[in-house]
Parts: sequence; C-alpha cells; structure tokens
Amino acid sequence: MSATKTPIRTDIGSSTPDSITVFGRDFTNDILGKLSFGDMAFLELTGRTPTENESRMFNAMLVTLVEHGLTPSTLVARLTILGAPESLQAAVAAGLCGLGTVFVGSIEGTAKMLYEAMPDPAPPAEHARLAKQILDRFEAEKAIVPGIGHPFHKPIDPRTPRLIQLARETGFDGPYIALVLQISAEGERRKGKKLPVNATGILGALCCEMRFDWRICRGLGVMARAVGLVGHILEEMRSPMARDIWLKTEHDATAHVRDMD
Amino acid sequence: MSATKTPIRTDIGSSTPDSITVFGRDFTNDILGKLSFGDMAFLELTGRTPTENESRMFNAMLVTLVEHGLTPSTLVARLTILGAPESLQAAVAAGLCGLGTVFVGSIEGTAKMLYEAMPDPAPPAEHARLAKQILDRFEAEKAIVPGIGHPFHKPIDPRTPRLIQLARETGFDGPYIALVLQISAEGERRKGKKLPVNATGILGALCCEMRFDWRICRGLGVMARAVGLVGHILEEMRSPMARDIWLKTEHDATAHVRDMD
Amino acid sequence: MSATKTPIRTDIGSSTPDSITVFGRDFTNDILGKLSFGDMAFLELTGRTPTENESRMFNAMLVTLVEHGLTPSTLVARLTILGAPESLQAAVAAGLCGLGTVFVGSIEGTAKMLYEAMPDPAPPAEHARLAKQILDRFEAEKAIVPGIGHPFHKPIDPRTPRLIQLARETGFDGPYIALVLQISAEGERRKGKKLPVNATGILGALCCEMRFDWRICRGLGVMARAVGLVGHILEEMRSPMARDIWLKTEHDATAHVRDMD
Amino acid sequence: MSATKTPIRTDIGSSTPDSITVFGRDFTNDILGKLSFGDMAFLELTGRTPTENESRMFNAMLVTLVEHGLTPSTLVARLTILGAPESLQAAVAAGLCGLGTVFVGSIEGTAKMLYEAMPDPAPPAEHARLAKQILDRFEAEKAIVPGIGHPFHKPIDPRTPRLIQLARETGFDGPYIALVLQISAEGERRKGKKLPVNATGILGALCCEMRFDWRICRGLGVMARAVGLVGHILEEMRSPMARDIWLKTEHDATAHVRDMD
Repeated sequence: MSATKTPIRTDIGSSTPDSITVFGRDFTNDILGKLSFGDMAFLELTGRTPTENESRMFNAMLVTLVEHGLTPSTLVARLTILGAPESLQAAVAAGLCGLGTVFVGSIEGTAKMLYEAMPDPAPPAEHARLAKQILDRFEAEKAIVPGIGHPFHKPIDPRTPRLIQLARETGFDGPYIALVLQISAEGERRKGKKLPVNATGILGALCCEMRFDWRICRGLGVMARAVGLVGHILEEMRSPMARDIWLKTEHDATAHVRDMD
Repeated sequence: MSATKTPIRTDIGSSTPDSITVFGRDFTNDILGKLSFGDMAFLELTGRTPTENESRMFNAMLVTLVEHGLTPSTLVARLTILGAPESLQAAVAAGLCGLGTVFVGSIEGTAKMLYEAMPDPAPPAEHARLAKQILDRFEAEKAIVPGIGHPFHKPIDPRTPRLIQLARETGFDGPYIALVLQISAEGERRKGKKLPVNATGILGALCCEMRFDWRICRGLGVMARAVGLVGHILEEMRSPMARDIWLKTEHDATAHVRDMD
Repeated sequence: MSATKTPIRTDIGSSTPDSITVFGRDFTNDILGKLSFGDMAFLELTGRTPTENESRMFNAMLVTLVEHGLTPSTLVARLTILGAPESLQAAVAAGLCGLGTVFVGSIEGTAKMLYEAMPDPAPPAEHARLAKQILDRFEAEKAIVPGIGHPFHKPIDPRTPRLIQLARETGFDGPYIALVLQISAEGERRKGKKLPVNATGILGALCCEMRFDWRICRGLGVMARAVGLVGHILEEMRSPMARDIWLKTEHDATAHVRDMD
Repeated sequence: MSATKTPIRTDIGSSTPDSITVFGRDFTNDILGKLSFGDMAFLELTGRTPTENESRMFNAMLVTLVEHGLTPSTLVARLTILGAPESLQAAVAAGLCGLGTVFVGSIEGTAKMLYEAMPDPAPPAEHARLAKQILDRFEAEKAIVPGIGHPFHKPIDPRTPRLIQLARETGFDGPYIALVLQISAEGERRKGKKLPVNATGILGALCCEMRFDWRICRGLGVMARAVGLVGHILEEMRSPMARDIWLKTEHDATAHVRDMD
C-alpha cells in the first residue's frame, strides 16, 4: 500500500541523552518529585498542571473507581495470573478488557449524552427541558439511559452524594451535574421508581464540568481500575482464590452431566 | 473436576446497599476526597495509608514511569484504537501487554535480584561483596543484569540522580539503593564502560526499601503506564499518527517485492 | 452483593478422570484426529460437524482473514513481543484487541445490517427495495455502510469474487449474498463511484447464509487473525523490525523539537 | 532517539490494488478455497504447505487444545464479555492472556527442555541417559518438569495415548516422543508415583518432531484456544453464567464480613 506524506508528530514528550521533556516541561526537575500521581494524570489529559481545586476534585474522581471489591474485572485478573504468574502486566490488561459499555464505560456514555444535549452550559431554567428531550430520545431508541440507577446500591450509590459534596467544595457543581440530576428526577417520575444518579453518572458529569473530551472519559476509569487490579493480584498471590473459583464453577456447571449417570 | 472445600475470602473490600468498605475503611467518607490517587495506590499495595515521606517517595516512583514519549507500548495503544475506537480500554490493555522483562518489568528483575542477595538489610561493609556475588552469578548464567545501563540515556538516565535525591530527602536512601549502586560500580569495573543504574533499577531498589513483594513491583510500572497510555490515546484521537505508521511501515517492509518488478 | 439462585450450566464440555466430552462427543476418540482444525471451529459455533460443502466454505471464510501482510494488528503483536518476549500469548492478545468496528469487526456490522433488513430470506424481487431502505437509513443516521468499498484494493477486493465463486460451488450463494451485492450496486448509483463489496462484507453475508448469530460473526475474524499473528511473531523473532519501527517513529515524530534548536 | 539504518522487511505478504501475495503465493487463487484453516496455520509457521501426514498430525495438535470445558481462560472471556459485550475481540484477548507457563505454555516448556537436551535426534540408546540428565538438572534447580503429570486426569490424560497413536500413524513417533516418555518413566521411578506425559507434554514433543522453533510452540495453544474461546462466548451470550459467577464469588468471599454483624 502507499505511504502518506503527512509528517507524524507528538507533542507529549521527547528525549535527549541527558534529558526528558514532557508537555514542554523538564520531566526530571519540574515534574518528578513535584507532581503527585493524580496530578500527573491530569497533566496527561490536559497538558497543564491542575489548580488546587481541580487537583482535589480530579484525584477524587480517579479514586472513586480504583476499588469496589470483587468485580468481574478483578476476577478476570485473578484467573489470568493463575495461568501466567510471570506476566502481571497481562493479568492487568485482561482485567481492563471488560471495562466496556456495561460497567466503567458508562462514564463515557453519560458524558456523551450530556455534551450532545448541552454542548455549552445552558442556564438552569433549560435543564428540565433538556432532560425531557434526552429521555424522549432514549425511549424512542429503546436505549438504556447511562449513569442512573444501580442494581445493588439502594436507595442510592453512596459515592454519589459524596462526589456532589466534593464538587460543591471545589466549584465543580455546575450545569452538567445539574442536568444529570434532572435526568434522574425525570426518569424517576416516568418510571415511578428510584433511579438515582450512580457513581459513573456523576463522574461523567464531572468530566463535562472539566471539559474533557467525551471520547476519553472512559480512560479515567481505566487508569483507576489498573491501580485496583494490581491490589487484587497481590492479594491473589498471598491468599489465592482463582483456582477454587475455577474448580467450583466447572463442577457446578457440569452437574447436569453427572446427574445423568 | 472436583471442587475444593476451602472457603474463599477477600479482605480488600465489600459492600452493603448503602456503604462500601475498602481495607476496613468507610470508602465514601474516609477515603473519597481524602486520599490522593497516588496514596490510594499505596493503600492497595500495603493496606494502610502512607506517611508524608512515603507518600512523596511513592508518588514520585509512580510518576517516573507514566511518560517517556513514544515508547513501543504507546505505539501499540495508538495502533489499537485505530481499529477499535469504541474500545479505549482494549487499547490501554494492548499497550500494557508489552510491559514484560525487557522494558518496565525490569523493576521486578532488579527487586528480585536485590532481595535474593540481601533478604534483610546488611551493613554497608557487606555491599561490595554482595555486588560481586550477584555479578558472578549473572555471569555464570550468562544472564543480563537488570537495572543497569541504558541504550539511549548517556552518560546516565537523568531520572536516576533525581530519584536518589528524593530518596535522600524522604529517608529511603537505604541499603538496597546502596547495593544497586555497588552493582553498577562493580559492573563498570568489570566491563570497563559506563553502566549506571537506570530508572527501573532505582525503582526496583526503592521497592525493596519499601519492602514491597518483588512479585508485585512490575505493577507500579503497569499502574503508571496505564495513565500515560490514556494520554497518548487522547493525542492520537486529536492528531492521529497510527494510520501513517502502519502504511509507511507496510510500504517500507515490502519494498523488496516492488523492486523485483 | 446477593448471589442468585439460578444454577449455572455449560453444554460445551466436561471431563472425568479418564475422558473428555465435547458437544456430547467423546473428544479423544471421535474428534481428535478425525476433525480438522477448521471443522472443529465449526463445531464450536454450531454444536455439530459440517457437511462437506459447509466445511469447504467455512474453512475458506476463516482462511480469508488469517493473513493480509503488515496490518495494524500484526504491528501491535510485533511491538508487544519486543517488550515481553516471554509472553507470546500476550502479544497475540494485544494484536487482537484492535479488531473492532473499523477493521475486522465490519463482518459483524454487515451481518447485523443484513439480518435487520431481512431476518428471513426474502425473494429476489425484494432485494433491490431492501437495499434502498438500508441505504436510506444509513444516510439518515449519517453512518458508514459496512462491507462496501476498500481504501486500497481497486477496482475490487480480489477476495470478493473468489469468495462468491466458492459460495456458488458450495451452495451458499443465497439471498444475503444477493442483498449485499444490491447494497453495493445501489451505493455506487447514489455516490457515482465504485463501492464494491469488500472481503468482510462478503464474509458477513456468508455468516448470514450459514445462519450464524450476528453477535459472534466478528469471532471468525478473531479466530483467523490469532493464527496469522503467531506467524508474524515468528517472523519478528527471526528477522525483527519492531525496534526499528519504534525508533524511527519516535525520531520522526519529535523532529519538530530538534528543528527548534 | 536515533533511528537505525537497517531496512525493515517482511516476507509473509504484500498487496497490490488487485492482488494479495502470501508466502510467495497468489492468496486469492492458490490459497483461498484450496487450503484448510489448519493447513493455513501450518503455512504461517513453516512458509510451506503440509504433506498429507503433516496435515493430519498438525490439525490434530491444534484441535487438542481448542476445548477442555470450563477452563480459567474461558471464565475470563465470559466475565469480560459481561462488561464489554460490544468488544468480542477484547474478550478473546483477555482469555488468551492467561495462557502462560502454568497452563498452555507448558508446550513451550516441554519443547525447550527437549531441544536443549537433544538439539538433534539422538539414537534410542541415548534417551534414558538424557532423561536422567534432564531430571537431575530440574531437581538441582528445584524446577517443575513440564509436560508430565496432571492434577485431574488419572491414571493418564486420555489425549496422550491418542496423540501417540496419531503420531505413529503419520510417522511423527520419533526421538522426541521417545525422550519425553523416558522422562515420564524416569520421573515415576524417582517419585514412586504415576507421572504420565500429559497433553501439552506430547504436543511439545510433537512440535520438536516437526522442528518448530521452541519459542513459537506456545502459539499452537494460543491459536487453538482462540477458537474455543469464541465458542464459549457464544454460549455465554445465549445462556449466561458470568454474572452469577461474579455475584456468588463476591458473596462467598465476603461472608466473613457479614458474620461479624
């Protein structure tokens, strides 16, 4: 096939034999030891260091999805390290593969929904109308509204009010938070049941408040879960459960064969 | 197959409908908004929150490997999102898969080498002898000594002296740092060329200073690189290069076919 | 969280200490050495062994996507084995991660499009009308029609006429092949340019002829590419290119930095 | 970093607008519809088409590892598709990540062990001595001997005698099969218990008989398992178990928390 003529280019970083430059900064002297891990993640997404309020809110957003006990992705990482103990990186990679539209990826779904309805912040008086429009469209398309409801946490995902409180404290309690809350309220009115905003719903709204590109919002969950998966792999190494999960599952799922005997 | 009788158990986290517990803490009220992302990572690896010095050193360790410009793993993530733009998590996962023994995994190799030679800290007078033993063993096994030398950064990986300085400031400039420096010195003496400790070498030694299990040390690099990969995917979405890399590579690698015409 | 009461169950396979059963067959005596690799893949998707015609067509479908030279996924596998030579499985996994909606996944897109328009085979007289309806809908949604056109193979993807010929020889040249060809013809009429059915378009139609669930059609490409990726990893081990691709790309993409000096 | 001057090159395949060449053959006319999927895999590994005997043996080798019921890797694929149903390729990728040294990767371990002891075929009289040497070395290194023993299949993995029978029928019952059987016999003598050659042990020996590079032998299992994983994903779509496995595991592993109440 024919090559193109466009010169490729990265503005993230480059190196000389005795220096590393990242986003225009001297990595060794101006970043290393000066920026925290969370603030470095902010730099990766925005090309600049966060303000104090941005840092507090953004770190909380990342921390939200690091850990939620035994999720499917942690089981995947544990079952993978069982077969390939020499490839920790592959066990984390396997665990991340499932962060799609159903679980963590709903951050992205929420952010996309909010941006599409409200590309730029609209005055509060508009939010109820926008929420109705959004629900009308999702109903017409028979699609699941992202970011509201939770199969287990009832009456409300405890992380939601805490994240809203932090948004208030840091000045990120803006129009997108308001809109996602309106969507929840309108959804509850239509369905006649509790459909509170869940953690990924609030995170999606917060991503909009921070003006992140919706296509990258799932990335916050991916960064966060990568950290949590390493924690689960460490526990698996010390007090393993993967082999038992496997053997028990295999046994249970083939009981019907033995019953035939 | 037959199931085992052992009850499985996790001590990382659990949930009730209205609460989430992580390492024995109320996640919502005691972690979210209180712990930074880096400190949360420390909690995952140790089950406790870091001291101020631990936090400073550990955050720097994580930040070290977030970004190094266009590495093979960032190219992998970019080439993957090209084909599956709807699966950001899979692009990060693909990028992580290559963090094995050659690149980031050398943290693990260094930590293992240091722990095997010095399970518990030995007095400084022992370090030179231990370094000789280690090099003797690697020479006998014709194995590459992890953590020293760098194909590009010369005379020294600029991150190394900076990390040592931070170790000094935070009280982590202990026996494992000393030993890895001795290995470098002894290696340089034997080979008659510069073989300074590289970034993953110092990180491996710092993992030992923090008493991390060597089997999990690669995980620090995996956490860090997951963050950096999201940054590269974002740049790829905005100013893509993956298609050009692909087409140019394909063109160059098949030139010999066209030359036959 | 609360566990469910439903008993889990697999009907794919089970084992006793001295036997393995797969899809109700004695694996050792009735499958091993009797079924070819391609026919085993057919058994996995259908629960039965193929007829001679099914075997010929299905094997050709799988073979189609094994190899297409240096694709993005093969570059990913090569760049991954560079960093983790001890984890061949992770290099293949990384290479598969990019088989999404843009490349191989278009098999799924085509099959879904065809099934939605024509859940059950319709008489030839209906095909032109259905093709118009499909294109109207894609135009209304501003979506790309899967399975037609090719950026490089012109005037036509050479695999397309060959697959159609094989479909004719094996009796799979049915209504879904006819419909995808009508879509191509109608598309060419509307756009005033060549938009022939490409390889994944024909494969999607063939999956419909074989009545495969559209949600699994991408799986044929995944099976096939897994085979091809191993071939590329072997070549990479013997005559490597990944390091050069990396270094050259890094050099080219940071030229603007050096130009500033 | 500086780019190298070496021209990169692939000899696997290339394309022109109207043709695709693979291993020097016209892909469309000489491979598609003529080579079975298994024989195409052989072409990828050797650059040539197999003889009739090679085809029969090689297809059986691939088929061996396609399916073994609910293995850890199939559970991983199922738990991954639960969270990312839109990314079938990522679910297969996740499932492959665990094919490391413990499970399928033991093909590689066996082949490496056999080649190191016997780079070229040695006469039968030498095999017992070589087997002793191998076991001495593994004992000295306190390493697990790959390819012998099975935690579940007793007294013998039923695939082993079948594969040996096929090797005899196709002329691949050579010195490496003999050597691995000697290793098993010597191991049984030393341990005083049954340690028969298992399926991956025989496959490793067969890879040596076919003169495959040991570094690629794991690839046969990866190809095979990719096929089986698609089958399990299809069953998961139709009669799901992943959500139940997750919820039940989470419930069981946190029982100790509830017991405290």
